Amino acid sequence: MSGHKVNVAEYLFTRLHQLGVKDLHGVPGDFNLIALDYVEPCGINWVGNCNELNAGYAADAYGRLMGMGALVTTFGVGELSCLNAIAGSFAEFCPVVHVVGTPKRAAQKSGMLLHHTLGNGDFNVFADMSKPITIAQTNLMDPATAPAEIDRVLQACYVNSRPVYIQLPADMVTEEVDAELLDTPIVVEPPPSDHETEKLAAELILRKLYAAKRPTLLLDAGAQRHRVEGLTEQFARKTGLPTFITPMGKGVANEESPLFAGIYIGKGSEENVRRRIEESDLVITIGNVKSDVNSFGFSYRISRLSSVDLHFDHVVMDCAKFENVYMKWLLERLVKEVDPSKMHMDKVETPLRKSAQLTNGEAATTQDVTHDWLWPRISSWLKSGDVVITETGTSFVGIWETKFPSGVQAINQTLWSSIGYGLGAAQGAALAMKTLGGGRRTVCFEGDGSFQLTAQELSTIIRQDLDCTIFLIENDGYEIERWVHGMKAKYNDISKWRYNKIAEVFTPEEGASRHRVKSYKIGTRSELERLLADEDFSAGKGLQFVELHMPRYNAPQTLIDFAQSLSKKSE
Amino acid sequence: MSGHKVNVAEYLFTRLHQLGVKDLHGVPGDFNLIALDYVEPCGINWVGNCNELNAGYAADAYGRLMGMGALVTTFGVGELSCLNAIAGSFAEFCPVVHVVGTPKRAAQKSGMLLHHTLGNGDFNVFADMSKPITIAQTNLMDPATAPAEIDRVLQACYVNSRPVYIQLPADMVTEEVDAELLDTPIVVEPPPSDHETEKLAAELILRKLYAAKRPTLLLDAGAQRHRVEGLTEQFARKTGLPTFITPMGKGVANEESPLFAGIYIGKGSEENVRRRIEESDLVITIGNVKSDVNSFGFSYRISRLSSVDLHFDHVVMDCAKFENVYMKWLLERLVKEVDPSKMHMDKVETPLRKSAQLTNGEAATTQDVTHDWLWPRISSWLKSGDVVITETGTSFVGIWETKFPSGVQAINQTLWSSIGYGLGAAQGAALAMKTLGGGRRTVCFEGDGSFQLTAQELSTIIRQDLDCTIFLIENDGYEIERWVHGMKAKYNDISKWRYNKIAEVFTPEEGASRHRVKSYKIGTRSELERLLADEDFSAGKGLQFVELHMPRYNAPQTLIDFAQSLSKKSE
Repeated sequence: MSGHKVNVAEYLFTRLHQLGVKDLHGVPGDFNLIALDYVEPCGINWVGNCNELNAGYAADAYGRLMGMGALVTTFGVGELSCLNAIAGSFAEFCPVVHVVGTPKRAAQKSGMLLHHTLGNGDFNVFADMSKPITIAQTNLMDPATAPAEIDRVLQACYVNSRPVYIQLPADMVTEEVDAELLDTPIVVEPPPSDHETEKLAAELILRKLYAAKRPTLLLDAGAQRHRVEGLTEQFARKTGLPTFITPMGKGVANEESPLFAGIYIGKGSEENVRRRIEESDLVITIGNVKSDVNSFGFSYRISRLSSVDLHFDHVVMDCAKFENVYMKWLLERLVKEVDPSKMHMDKVETPLRKSAQLTNGEAATTQDVTHDWLWPRISSWLKSGDVVITETGTSFVGIWETKFPSGVQAINQTLWSSIGYGLGAAQGAALAMKTLGGGRRTVCFEGDGSFQLTAQELSTIIRQDLDCTIFLIENDGYEIERWVHGMKAKYNDISKWRYNKIAEVFTPEEGASRHRVKSYKIGTRSELERLLADEDFSAGKGLQFVELHMPRYNAPQTLIDFAQSLSKKSE
Repeated sequence: MSGHKVNVAEYLFTRLHQLGVKDLHGVPGDFNLIALDYVEPCGINWVGNCNELNAGYAADAYGRLMGMGALVTTFGVGELSCLNAIAGSFAEFCPVVHVVGTPKRAAQKSGMLLHHTLGNGDFNVFADMSKPITIAQTNLMDPATAPAEIDRVLQACYVNSRPVYIQLPADMVTEEVDAELLDTPIVVEPPPSDHETEKLAAELILRKLYAAKRPTLLLDAGAQRHRVEGLTEQFARKTGLPTFITPMGKGVANEESPLFAGIYIGKGSEENVRRRIEESDLVITIGNVKSDVNSFGFSYRISRLSSVDLHFDHVVMDCAKFENVYMKWLLERLVKEVDPSKMHMDKVETPLRKSAQLTNGEAATTQDVTHDWLWPRISSWLKSGDVVITETGTSFVGIWETKFPSGVQAINQTLWSSIGYGLGAAQGAALAMKTLGGGRRTVCFEGDGSFQLTAQELSTIIRQDLDCTIFLIENDGYEIERWVHGMKAKYNDISKWRYNKIAEVFTPEEGASRHRVKSYKIGTRSELERLLADEDFSAGKGLQFVELHMPRYNAPQTLIDFAQSLSKKSE
């Protein structure tokens, strides 16, 4: 094929850029250095993270917001360092491309005893380790097939919203391929459903809907991951269905809508919310994830005969699985075909959920910042456009008590639950917000125990000149673990760092960044109120690191209840 | 079986203690909390690391010094975070036990959708990922077989000096087993060789030795990993063989011995060292690792017909492999049977290696701390008993120019080469020194780029009240990568942290530790000289963190030469 050529790295990076990757995370290593030369010429910002696990977390959050995230690591030492992050992206349906720079093909074929190997000549071992946590993989060994392989894998990543793995040998970087292939966009839509099954499923769903007296809609993370939030909202508005979310689905529904009816957390729900869902004669769920935390210990009491569960590529109803029915096409069809005049829904009293109270019956006799006070309190400080990251710990449960303004996105790992994810995710999210423009805030609630795993990524937030407000919950230990087991055990204690001085040590003494880094130390409700009232602070610019002291042995009631049920399951 | 019972956790921890694990690294997680209750009652100190990768590095270094290291992580999120460290231990032959707390057996069997899973009910996936980087694995599902399984796996770890993997379901922790089994020690010696093969191999070796005019001995990492340093020294003394080391073998020979003849680095060697080895008519190697860095790009020119290579469980000579001959038993036999009066070795002029010069021909016209000056210079500051850790980067090459006093141990990853390992290893080594007693110093030369990956483990060094002196080479970037490719590339730059303030932010404001943490900022040779002359500093007590400024684009000449040969190989 004649015509304009590009090299394999340029082909790969151009495709990534086309799919939403404007910022590429990762860490250099000698097997990927040559590839890195081509990142910025392809219009992508290179983010040199402090380590690969943090890069993986950042790429995960970035992907949730931008449509796709990506990181580059080096063979063996680099790629193995981020497997926890990649596995988390797999579990949580996040579209992340993991590119691994590997040794020259000839060196691999001859089994050379190179650094970064196990010393046994096996160059396939690390790729094999990544297989179970990626949806597609490729080893770019041949320029003739490289473009097609890249396209195949990137498409799988985007369409399925799951991580993929690409090995790029150092001598393949500069091999040339046909540039014209880049003119044909990669198809990012799901494939068409099986026509007959989709048609029948839609008919059955509408029939159920028209017959139902108390139908409800339950939105979960899958609605966000599989990019159907818009369609879901259209469907809700057209039908007037009371709309509930799950913990993992926080941010998927507009909580200011008159249709919003609360957060369903199994037996951890507010009573009227629980009853409304469990007495519903038709619960349509979108992207539901019935994991232990999300369902408060598998305490859903929704009859299978009343549920219709839409998933990425199948529907479950009446104890049957309808395969090859893509949620996106099904929802499009339902939005188009539903006739609200045929519905017989009882008049709905919403909002069902109690407004977030500033006090939960607790008289304000204390100045301590406690969970019962904090989470409802910040509802009025959050604003439309915010991206709110919560960490595995008290915050990812506490946030269930916060009412989101419309247009707030939530990021957390309610299923994978890796502590330390929060800060890496905050870096990725804040970078996405910078790239998208529009001045949206990134707000992160991080636990002190979790923070210690990934703390250095503050450096990248500063270096990339991001806007990121971090509330560091300083309660002197792994609070969530205390409630599971070992309330006063030494292993649940941590070292008491000087949190309000940390951002400063990661800030170069020279350069503009030091004007954009502020630390605060907050110990009382009044102090926090003053801070939240401060307009400069609330603008959310630069890195704002708030050491927020909360007492030990204090946690959201739901977390206490859940942890205690978990510890019974673990023992 | 009647009699005194212990539970499975107690059995496991008691066995670990018997094998040298007096300090257990790791991070708590809900699936391992109950097990953690039994650590300290079994006489083991629990080290709560900041994250699992750092815990893995620490356990690796600890194991090199104590005979065995161990860490506890949690299912999925924890275990995957340290796979880079475990793989490094596998490559480098380090005895590390990776214990993973997993969910209750019933939950696993029923494929429950728990947190920390991929959401697909697969509870074997993570164990499968660890298989290729461990020598033995077990899943403790049955109290009846648990003791035997634990013993099998721990024995494999110790004897083979390679990492192993143990899954401990949360409900197995308190299952009871027979305590008397603990009275029978686990056999930690290698199995006996094949008698006939060993006898023949010994005869052939001695025959060659007696015939040789210019025999030499080349010691490498395997001599340390497989615990034959003592036997090797006896053999050298009895025969008077000139003794060389490789880079990875630094610390294995006594460099003050009159027999010590230099460091062989293929074509990177000093000329007279290279010639002596390459013109030798018999090179007996012990535990040789012919990896790229260790052999300066595979540039050994030692004839196969002149070599006798002793490895853990086999010997290679005359193009043949003699299997099932254990290095330890063979060396014992050789030490016993060798008759020096039958040797015909030419008179040897040693020391062959030039004494470490304070100046390498460079006139002292600069006050800059340069590599050519630094590495020879610290020779006289090091002392017997020191453990010297060097990082992948300039220091693990620079140290080849340092002459070690007798009794100095070296720790590095010349084969696996994972940046960031140095600091985690320093924590593990310093803890081993504390536990062993005797006041030995732990000295670490860390690069600034590498430091950023694992920096938080300073917190653990402080919290465990360790003695550790860290020289942080501040040269504003990934210097070793610059020399491979991208000398001035942005991706080889890093953020300029305030290194001399970092130890302080990881030090609690209250408590005794703040008196034991000191930071220094050194920019010139005179400043370093003053510091090295300071007796308090040289005592090596507490955490001493020295920010040592060195110029960009300066590196040990050997590294420059090697990196440039590497970059030719990678492209």
